[in-house]
Amino acid sequence: MRWIGEADTTSGVAERAFQVDVGGREVPGIAWLPAGEAAGVDGPRPLVLVGHGATLHKRVDHIVSLAHLLVRTHGFAAAALDAPGHGDRRPDRTADEVQLFGNFLTEWSRPGSTDDVVAEWQAAISALREEPRIGDGPIGYWGLSMGTIYGIPLAAAEPRVQVAVFGLMGLLGPTKDRIEADARALACPLAFILQWHDQLVGRDDSFALFDALGSVDKRLHAHPGEHAAVPPEELLFSVEFLARHLAPAHR
Amino acid sequence: MRWIGEADTTSGVAERAFQVDVGGREVPGIAWLPAGEAAGVDGPRPLVLVGHGATLHKRVDHIVSLAHLLVRTHGFAAAALDAPGHGDRRPDRTADEVQLFGNFLTEWSRPGSTDDVVAEWQAAISALREEPRIGDGPIGYWGLSMGTIYGIPLAAAEPRVQVAVFGLMGLLGPTKDRIEADARALACPLAFILQWHDQLVGRDDSFALFDALGSVDKRLHAHPGEHAAVPPEELLFSVEFLARHLAPAHR
Repeated sequence: MRWIGEADTTSGVAERAFQVDVGGREVPGIAWLPAGEAAGVDGPRPLVLVGHGATLHKRVDHIVSLAHLLVRTHGFAAAALDAPGHGDRRPDRTADEVQLFGNFLTEWSRPGSTDDVVAEWQAAISALREEPRIGDGPIGYWGLSMGTIYGIPLAAAEPRVQVAVFGLMGLLGPTKDRIEADARALACPLAFILQWHDQLVGRDDSFALFDALGSVDKRLHAHPGEHAAVPPEELLFSVEFLARHLAPAHR
Repeated sequence: MRWIGEADTTSGVAERAFQVDVGGREVPGIAWLPAGEAAGVDGPRPLVLVGHGATLHKRVDHIVSLAHLLVRTHGFAAAALDAPGHGDRRPDRTADEVQLFGNFLTEWSRPGSTDDVVAEWQAAISALREEPRIGDGPIGYWGLSMGTIYGIPLAAAEPRVQVAVFGLMGLLGPTKDRIEADARALACPLAFILQWHDQLVGRDDSFALFDALGSVDKRLHAHPGEHAAVPPEELLFSVEFLARHLAPAHR
């Protein structure tokens, strides 16, 4: 892993780009860390990985908001990666949302897609934990929709993930069986976010995925509205939920 | 309304019994208010009404916990009434839970049952707001199961109820049509709590009631487990949810 440029601290949170090389792929990421007085404090500190949705990228507004809340309110670190074909990994920078969604469906259908993304996250985790200001603290994961498609296999493969927020996904699609098997293997505290009128994911498919999650400690939060209409309330809930499990003594 | 005895402040929260007479019925209640330094501070302050579940009573543990959190954390007032045939209104004090549940089903099937309970709450609201330390502040309602059966009609009849938490109930039972019509009339922010493996209320009936709720601002929280296994997490959520809408500036 190599850092790219200096940290940008203009927001009061230190944001720094990085790149991690996995299996010949250059995967661009961003890490967020406390700035100012807390900047010099070594880890370990909890690290929250944020997986973006299809057609989006590692620095979409709600990811930046989530990262800032985690860093500012709890002193955590956060990190996001561009998924294959997304963000700085788009083969065609002029592709519109429809093309990007088509590319995502193609990639999701490619055998090995899930394993590749899991490997990218695992390489990023190992590299980020070498950074003294992050260190080997507990890890949380937050990712909805495509962030759940790849996040459930990551959490199943990666015992360092101790708490996760999933949602906007169901038992459907080309990796349905993999997602179900990996969901059943999970045992950590989980939150599952569902949109009641999701036009992309059927409610019964979502319930089937919630049912499949192996964790005893799980909760489902649903709000009216379509796929992308998750309210800010659930971002705030996510931050407190992740913090409750990653730094219980901190509270 | 008349107060009964002096307030008990041993818990750090002032708890005082009262009785309100409605249509020839003597309805026993409890009010909770700040004790200590805040005791002398006049209202208006937000008032949260708490309706208990079938076979329970106005002073069941989770109601006391909820009231204490509302009073201690937010300086609110809280009040609970015994429902017909429950608590101090049991015709037979030696009745066991099975008998109490049978009595509840009989009462629920009695025409006029819902109107009577709504009238009891409305009389209590008016009387409590005469108390200077409560005053005419905004009102919230919290009640699951039987507390929802009577709470939805109360909220529909009572514009002073500005936010409510319902749950553990569906579109079923003798007042199903009344509950559905009153649910559709609601417009205030609502939370709906559901137990994923509720042995008394079918999941689809619960979803139908959540769908019927007229409010745009509503959310559903579900947890694994049977009817009575609502986790403390939802009590804490309820307190913050009620506070967010009853005293937004206070936050």
